[in-house]
Amino acid sequence: MSKELEEGSVLSLDFTKLKKVADCGADVMPAVAQDVDTGEVLILGYANQLALDTARAEGMATFWSTSRNELWIKGKTSGDYLEIVEIRVNCEQNSLLYLVRPKGKGACHTKDSSGTARSGCYYRRLKADGTLEFVTGKE
Amino acid sequence: MSKELEEGSVLSLDFTKLKKVADCGADVMPAVAQDVDTGEVLILGYANQLALDTARAEGMATFWSTSRNELWIKGKTSGDYLEIVEIRVNCEQNSLLYLVRPKGKGACHTKDSSGTARSGCYYRRLKADGTLEFVTGKE
Repeated sequence: MSKELEEGSVLSLDFTKLKKVADCGADVMPAVAQDVDTGEVLILGYANQLALDTARAEGMATFWSTSRNELWIKGKTSGDYLEIVEIRVNCEQNSLLYLVRPKGKGACHTKDSSGTARSGCYYRRLKADGTLEFVTGKE
Repeated sequence: MSKELEEGSVLSLDFTKLKKVADCGADVMPAVAQDVDTGEVLILGYANQLALDTARAEGMATFWSTSRNELWIKGKTSGDYLEIVEIRVNCEQNSLLYLVRPKGKGACHTKDSSGTARSGCYYRRLKADGTLEFVTGKE
């Protein structure tokens, strides 16, 4: 991923991702991980049946990596996992909500200017002029 | 939608939805609406550029209806809209988070047993035995 995409102030939305997800070969649905204590929406990934089964069995938020096309137990190797507290399903049963308690470092792979992993991926907001700015404390 | 799917205790995940979304003809990305005051994740929809532009212009959470293939300013007609407080973008710029303040009725199209629109779509949790149960107060 480019630095500008992740750290810049230019809105440059990637509308191509969803088609790649749909074409990855696995049957997946969006899975949102939310910090059960702070309410912060941390990350949106995709889960197939195996990912859901693994999340339940391991007690860790698990996704299907649609780019690597493999199971992704987030933070299992590093120890920075998201402990599953509860799994919710939406009305139409086509998306999941993982209520989690983060263990270790932040859920986002990016780091703030002090070199600390950001707690979640939604660290920028859209300004009135159409550019992005960092949410306070996430710079 | 079937009553059982929306109100039942049987987990019956619809993994077919995402492919339909990708094939709807519009370039979309997931857009999650979260209640900025309570932290509740209300609904996950899909947004294209027009939906995002409309959300910003109207100040109401807007999606692209991938089933009807049309713009969906949620609650605009009924008045039960989700006022946009802030729009956030994830690290890779391939999903959106609408921070909203619900006006009027709940964000979910389903109703609880008292006939009241549910505040959000994630009103059921997965139990250890693999069945669904209603979150307290959402029955």
